[in-house]
Amino acid sequence: MSATRYAPLPEPFALHAGGALPSGRIAYETFGSPAAAAERTILLFGGLSASAHARSSPENPQPGWWEEVVGPGRALDTERFFVVCVNSLGSCFGSTGPATPRPDGRRWGADFPTLSVEDIANGGRQVLRHLGIAQLHSVVGASLGGMTALAFVAQHPGIARHLVSISGTAAASALTIGLRAVQREAIERDPDFRNGDYDPEHPPRNGLRLARMLGTLTYRAPAGLATRFGRTRAVTGDRFAIEEYLTQHGERFADQFDANAYLRLSRAMDRFDLAAHGDPEKTFAAAGLRSALIAGVEQDLLFPLSEQASIVEHLQRAGVATHFLRISSEHGHDAFLLEHALFEPALRRHFHPLNDQVIAHAC
Amino acid sequence: MSATRYAPLPEPFALHAGGALPSGRIAYETFGSPAAAAERTILLFGGLSASAHARSSPENPQPGWWEEVVGPGRALDTERFFVVCVNSLGSCFGSTGPATPRPDGRRWGADFPTLSVEDIANGGRQVLRHLGIAQLHSVVGASLGGMTALAFVAQHPGIARHLVSISGTAAASALTIGLRAVQREAIERDPDFRNGDYDPEHPPRNGLRLARMLGTLTYRAPAGLATRFGRTRAVTGDRFAIEEYLTQHGERFADQFDANAYLRLSRAMDRFDLAAHGDPEKTFAAAGLRSALIAGVEQDLLFPLSEQASIVEHLQRAGVATHFLRISSEHGHDAFLLEHALFEPALRRHFHPLNDQVIAHAC
Repeated sequence: MSATRYAPLPEPFALHAGGALPSGRIAYETFGSPAAAAERTILLFGGLSASAHARSSPENPQPGWWEEVVGPGRALDTERFFVVCVNSLGSCFGSTGPATPRPDGRRWGADFPTLSVEDIANGGRQVLRHLGIAQLHSVVGASLGGMTALAFVAQHPGIARHLVSISGTAAASALTIGLRAVQREAIERDPDFRNGDYDPEHPPRNGLRLARMLGTLTYRAPAGLATRFGRTRAVTGDRFAIEEYLTQHGERFADQFDANAYLRLSRAMDRFDLAAHGDPEKTFAAAGLRSALIAGVEQDLLFPLSEQASIVEHLQRAGVATHFLRISSEHGHDAFLLEHALFEPALRRHFHPLNDQVIAHAC
Repeated sequence: MSATRYAPLPEPFALHAGGALPSGRIAYETFGSPAAAAERTILLFGGLSASAHARSSPENPQPGWWEEVVGPGRALDTERFFVVCVNSLGSCFGSTGPATPRPDGRRWGADFPTLSVEDIANGGRQVLRHLGIAQLHSVVGASLGGMTALAFVAQHPGIARHLVSISGTAAASALTIGLRAVQREAIERDPDFRNGDYDPEHPPRNGLRLARMLGTLTYRAPAGLATRFGRTRAVTGDRFAIEEYLTQHGERFADQFDANAYLRLSRAMDRFDLAAHGDPEKTFAAAGLRSALIAGVEQDLLFPLSEQASIVEHLQRAGVATHFLRISSEHGHDAFLLEHALFEPALRRHFHPLNDQVIAHAC
């Protein structure tokens, strides 16, 4: 049994880069009681490979991707908040994407249009409409989700009172674009890719595995890899433990993820630029935010602290009371998943019942 | 016309990881006058993709890989020194490697034995024997060459008076092994690879290009990529300039380099561990070094400064007068190629006529 529900997209659903989806839906899960006041709703966006399953539930006891952060008594306390987590538009865990059928029944495949982070944000907006939610306490996201949260407040001012963006960026760096370009190249050059029109039974597995191996490596920090693997040899064969680890991660991912979805989401991350919505200071000033929590990790290679600092600067210039949480974690970019305890005090403070009043004073 | 000469390897040539090459040769070029005293000879090892062509010459006017550093009046002054630059054993620019024939005329291909950095160092040693050179002023190397220089002094104490190791390491980190593992995977999963027994006319070009794209990205520092490319769009197509740049680099490399050679050299870099020769302090103490210059770049992701610092520590504990040059360069690992001017003052000091005396006093 699945906890996943679906919100239909309006027909057609206009896309940020042009064109439209003739039909579509967004997969979502909710945690906590919908009886909570509208201002007690949190909209949660996840990373590149996240589903809507942020936490286990009776309907789906599998641990979610933020199991320890979302739940009763947790930092995103489902006894106080109603948490709505969406699967990104263009992904492959229930939301419309390249692996889902078009109205005529054929898979979108290579024909899936250019996806933008803005579209993913708009997908979240549609879920709120579907649920009859007009106001949010917070829009929250990490990694790609941290970018999506920015796109959400830029496009939908006045809905979220608070913004939480963890290890995100307002615009990707050349290094990050380059690393993602290598991953895309790995998929696109796999002979099984067939220009994106691959047989679902024979997807470009090698390319996807390779892309994930590289991704995994860049989600971690050098020191963390050194601590965990160092120069330890693998249990079998003439390899190092780090190689075995990357291969296992790659294999597992290639079993789960759709290659075209990966390509669309990857490209969307490259293309996102908050400044394309106008001066970010003005964007944030117009967003109606009472406060923001921006977090980053010193050792993050992919979304470096300087990029979160730039978001903070824009927010502060816009007069938004902003807390900048700078974490030091050997886990690098993946710290929000692997060392969530480091983020918890700041998240708890952000979601504390007194926060609204405190912030009101601070402003 | 080529400036490349060849030194035969003894038959058989024992390999560090076991086994032997039944026959072989090392390609080398020399710069300056061989009439220089033996103590005025420099043995130079290059990086992963370097040939023996460190500098242009009348015989080969193409610029060499260290054109501005080696030559008359340059830091490695060929008016005072006789510079011998070798192409690494296992590479594909004249030295015996997977792309060269075995005694029976067939290419080595997948059957080329496991290569070690120690073997590359021993290849250099054979070139010296061939030239009748018993003593060196310095053994010098950068990147893989910086590792090879360490392997040289560990295996051949008493030959080099001075050591220069730039952006090298005594043992690769988990991150670096992982990044190289991804590159190898890209080559090995290319259907044209055929387990290493590929048709030389149809090599695994896609895999090699992909490997080089990733390599290129990691040889540079994030800030340098940001400065040079930022989020600039490519001239053609819906791509970023960084993507175009990586593709061009990858293409060019795939035209030049042999995939099996890349794999052997890549694996040798993973496997190298100076400590396998015993306590590095004792190794350096026994090497008969009068001084050492160890250089590194703060922004180097691949061979971080901490790894050069560890070499320096061992040298100093061994009582070797050591200069540790810490460079700050946006070019990251590739600074020794792209911003050689930063290294020149220290190199000039190292190769200054008074250095031997000064160092003698310092000791």
